[in-house]
Amino acid sequence: MSDVETRLLDEILAIRAIDCHSHVPPQSPHAQTLADLLGYHYYTELAHSAGMPAEAVDPQRSDGDRIAELVSRLDTISNTVQYSWLMEAARELFAFRAERLTPSNWPELAQSVAEAGRPRDRYLAVLAKSNLEKVFLTNRFDEDLSAVDRTVFVPCLRTDDLVFQLADAEVRHRLAAKTGTQVGSTGDLQSAVAWLMRYFVQAGAGSAAISLPPDFSPAGPDEKAAEKALAKALRGKALSENESQALAVFAFDAVANACRQFKKPFQLMIGVVRNVYPAGVANGRDLLSKRGSLVDYADLFRRYPDVDFTVSVLSMTWAHELATFAWIFPNVKPSGHWWYTNIPAHIEYDLRARLEALPKVKLIGYYSDMYKVEFGLPKFNMYRRVLARVLAREFVETHRLSERQAVEVATLLLRDNPKRIFGV
Amino acid sequence: MSDVETRLLDEILAIRAIDCHSHVPPQSPHAQTLADLLGYHYYTELAHSAGMPAEAVDPQRSDGDRIAELVSRLDTISNTVQYSWLMEAARELFAFRAERLTPSNWPELAQSVAEAGRPRDRYLAVLAKSNLEKVFLTNRFDEDLSAVDRTVFVPCLRTDDLVFQLADAEVRHRLAAKTGTQVGSTGDLQSAVAWLMRYFVQAGAGSAAISLPPDFSPAGPDEKAAEKALAKALRGKALSENESQALAVFAFDAVANACRQFKKPFQLMIGVVRNVYPAGVANGRDLLSKRGSLVDYADLFRRYPDVDFTVSVLSMTWAHELATFAWIFPNVKPSGHWWYTNIPAHIEYDLRARLEALPKVKLIGYYSDMYKVEFGLPKFNMYRRVLARVLAREFVETHRLSERQAVEVATLLLRDNPKRIFGV
Amino acid sequence: MSDVETRLLDEILAIRAIDCHSHVPPQSPHAQTLADLLGYHYYTELAHSAGMPAEAVDPQRSDGDRIAELVSRLDTISNTVQYSWLMEAARELFAFRAERLTPSNWPELAQSVAEAGRPRDRYLAVLAKSNLEKVFLTNRFDEDLSAVDRTVFVPCLRTDDLVFQLADAEVRHRLAAKTGTQVGSTGDLQSAVAWLMRYFVQAGAGSAAISLPPDFSPAGPDEKAAEKALAKALRGKALSENESQALAVFAFDAVANACRQFKKPFQLMIGVVRNVYPAGVANGRDLLSKRGSLVDYADLFRRYPDVDFTVSVLSMTWAHELATFAWIFPNVKPSGHWWYTNIPAHIEYDLRARLEALPKVKLIGYYSDMYKVEFGLPKFNMYRRVLARVLAREFVETHRLSERQAVEVATLLLRDNPKRIFGV
Repeated sequence: MSDVETRLLDEILAIRAIDCHSHVPPQSPHAQTLADLLGYHYYTELAHSAGMPAEAVDPQRSDGDRIAELVSRLDTISNTVQYSWLMEAARELFAFRAERLTPSNWPELAQSVAEAGRPRDRYLAVLAKSNLEKVFLTNRFDEDLSAVDRTVFVPCLRTDDLVFQLADAEVRHRLAAKTGTQVGSTGDLQSAVAWLMRYFVQAGAGSAAISLPPDFSPAGPDEKAAEKALAKALRGKALSENESQALAVFAFDAVANACRQFKKPFQLMIGVVRNVYPAGVANGRDLLSKRGSLVDYADLFRRYPDVDFTVSVLSMTWAHELATFAWIFPNVKPSGHWWYTNIPAHIEYDLRARLEALPKVKLIGYYSDMYKVEFGLPKFNMYRRVLARVLAREFVETHRLSERQAVEVATLLLRDNPKRIFGV
Repeated sequence: MSDVETRLLDEILAIRAIDCHSHVPPQSPHAQTLADLLGYHYYTELAHSAGMPAEAVDPQRSDGDRIAELVSRLDTISNTVQYSWLMEAARELFAFRAERLTPSNWPELAQSVAEAGRPRDRYLAVLAKSNLEKVFLTNRFDEDLSAVDRTVFVPCLRTDDLVFQLADAEVRHRLAAKTGTQVGSTGDLQSAVAWLMRYFVQAGAGSAAISLPPDFSPAGPDEKAAEKALAKALRGKALSENESQALAVFAFDAVANACRQFKKPFQLMIGVVRNVYPAGVANGRDLLSKRGSLVDYADLFRRYPDVDFTVSVLSMTWAHELATFAWIFPNVKPSGHWWYTNIPAHIEYDLRARLEALPKVKLIGYYSDMYKVEFGLPKFNMYRRVLARVLAREFVETHRLSERQAVEVATLLLRDNPKRIFGV
Repeated sequence: MSDVETRLLDEILAIRAIDCHSHVPPQSPHAQTLADLLGYHYYTELAHSAGMPAEAVDPQRSDGDRIAELVSRLDTISNTVQYSWLMEAARELFAFRAERLTPSNWPELAQSVAEAGRPRDRYLAVLAKSNLEKVFLTNRFDEDLSAVDRTVFVPCLRTDDLVFQLADAEVRHRLAAKTGTQVGSTGDLQSAVAWLMRYFVQAGAGSAAISLPPDFSPAGPDEKAAEKALAKALRGKALSENESQALAVFAFDAVANACRQFKKPFQLMIGVVRNVYPAGVANGRDLLSKRGSLVDYADLFRRYPDVDFTVSVLSMTWAHELATFAWIFPNVKPSGHWWYTNIPAHIEYDLRARLEALPKVKLIGYYSDMYKVEFGLPKFNMYRRVLARVLAREFVETHRLSERQAVEVATLLLRDNPKRIFGV
């Protein structure tokens, strides 16, 4: 590592970051057992991919059994960056000293995790050590937000169910229970969505969020078609693909509209195909497709010039489109490096392209997408290292930025931009 | 930068290059005011993308107002390579010494530009300093070519209107006024196109050129269908999508045929979607889509083995296809790095791939796509630096080429190949 | 090159590799004339792409004429990695000392090749020098396997004809002659395929293999539709596209089933479009398309959990999908870097991504795809160099792996994984 890169990395590690997307559960944000760490889907799915039967990590089995099973498989994935997250978390947060986690030394780490996790506010220490100021959650629309520790966590209204599961009576029932509105018409739906958005914003929410399949097109919501589809669903009939689509596009539009009304960004996470591999482990069954195009979102971006769309894509084939749409549309903000694109090879290429071509004030550098706060440190550190490398090699050493300017850019990406865009 | 790279860059900066694609206006090729530089769409569109209202750069406003507005926004894009073009041009061509262009120092640069731009032949000095021997223009089919200074500029017949706007009576009127042919049949169309091509070639033109949407397919021109569509257009009726397509494919084929007849290359610039963001600034409304495939052009490449197709693509997802088609088809020549792909991250990856796999005699290294000659220097220098880096790191340091051979390769890309292929 | 990279490369060059895909002819595995080397399609197609008429390498012409013609064109491709394979083979296997192959020095190399090629077992020395323990062949289903020297070669059942050419009476005739089964029904087809698989496995075969067009979808084989299509073909009628597809999907499924029955992997090579440029040189007429998606294979991967699918893709746009499918599906193994992706720029990017995100035990590093054993050395060495670079820069220097661990990973990719997966 060059001296410039080393100095930049030091500065970048010192930036107090905002993590604008995670799945941390507000009532148990930190790990209490080693199983909470090893149960992260990256470890279960990669161990399964490398040969472990999915049943080996069945939740029915005891923590100890599952841990022993996973640890015995870890060598097969010791090359991966996901494995390095685990070891960095173990080292930095639990003072674990061994280089590898093995069948013989895991009980030691398990004990450290159990001890460290005992204090109710352990997550505060973890986040402080990780240099994370705020962490966004992803909340179900009827989730109890009173449990959220708002000193560090920011609620976020997850709208997947509202957009794609309205034909499910159970979802409508939950919606009625929460909002008091029995959705009987498209107007009701708009009201309920607005009600939820107001409720979330009052609870400090930073945004709405949704994950979308690669073939979704939010263009041209058609209230009449949605009304018909909704009526059919209310009669308990199964919807055709067209009807489902009409209802989803309308509901999606209602969310965008609520974002406009309450001046909050809409986090679009585009490209996931759910349940491609149903025999996989929990949370390890979804994949992606390279089909589709951001062109299908142009109509949305045009109709809502006042709404910031912070956009992540799951397929690297979409990365260039995302950068170009953010280049032209004021309300499109590229956000982080999501899931299957969240490895250094892809981050480095894509980050360099974004930094070279897009206004620095529009870039949301990174989010953790984590399920337990312990992964914020190693995931953000991975990103901080790539960021230091790209800034050093492509900007400072080529005299396009001074070191001070490079640190300013890094501060925008990690902290100032998400603070300003999400209003936290 | 390694010593090898430094030495290569010195040699590469000394190569007198050919710029085979620009939008320089022959009657005012160089900047006369700072607004001519800051008005480049990269600055207006990026400033708008970063928050500036599009109206702020309305042509109705005075130069001074627009400049002040843009300069006040420049900090938001100071990380971009586009910003670095501006500063390099200011430094190298206008002896501007400040590191950043600011609200307090821009009048100084404005004065330098105004003074430097006064001599009518200022562009010659700019091009000499930029080490550019020839710069291609992109001329409307009825443009007056007598104003073109053929010591440095090379006309090029832009055929977008001919191919995609024939249903527009105004275009047919312009065509008749220029060629003397009132297009009443497909035969007339072929004649008019051939007439134009002859006219342009006699005026020193290097090629025909066209920009194409990502879903265009030039396969299988159908004269009968085109005849019917043309007849309908002549009756003033709006064409269906199929009819428009039939007419466009036929007209496109007429251009390819004229290229064959007059032994000139056809510059294909594939992938632009026009007016995706109509509320944007001028020239900042077009985008791209990753859909489509070069396979749709195979029929064209087969039918015209004697025509050189110099091909640029706008989406990075097309880059690998372009390289492979150039690998197999003798008449496909990859050309430069167009618009949204014209940043170092993409150039470096794509250039390395082309240099590793394609005959060096087929590669057209770069063109500026500029609107004022001042941008030739920083844009070509950006490319020269990437070229030096790729040749040093991947060819000389790995012993695949000697330094002398690497410079020969660079000379082919920047100068000898475009000279030979376009016959200038 | 850093010291770490140099040390790693030394170790990696010492790994005795398995080459799991080639087109080496068992009866003449090594070159006997220089024409055998220069006749490799990379040289003929690139020379043609650079301007040589295809007729110049017509098999009718004498070896000497073809060699002289090709050598006179080599300078046009001296920058390419393909050219570097030729020169490395010449240097390492034939003690050729000149830096370039020229019209004046080629007779010297021709003589060396002729002399060296004389011993019948010359290929053994070449493979030993190349550090290749085993080389897979790609055999026609009715090929005589008795000629195969099983000390170094491993047969592999190529199934392209069985899947895509069953409507051809000649193919069915060859099938009947080999298996004794006159295919009159889908059941017969399954039997014949199983018979072949058993026969190949008994002859030491490591797998079945097939190359697939980018729009092929193996989902949902429909025996009834296949039966109808087969019956129509048996009546000598031409099949519609749908019928051809139905028959192909069913036959493909029969092969997958036979792989399950005989516990052998199925090598899928996805993405080739055949005969895009019919006027090209032999083996230089095929290209690719970026259309299609691995999602279309999910159904297959789900239905055959016990079959290892070793997957290669021809378009770089598919690379990310392949990595993610291998991340989730236990039976999907990314394999090598095929044909148009087989250049350092693409290998480096893709290899880094695979190594960062996928279990090391699933990666098949490389195969040569060669037609003469002489190309194993330079092609594998190209890969070994990229592997050393990626491991040094992204794993050892970033402290994710120790040097020893990095060499272990390399040994898995080059040797242990293919040995285990293919059972050789």
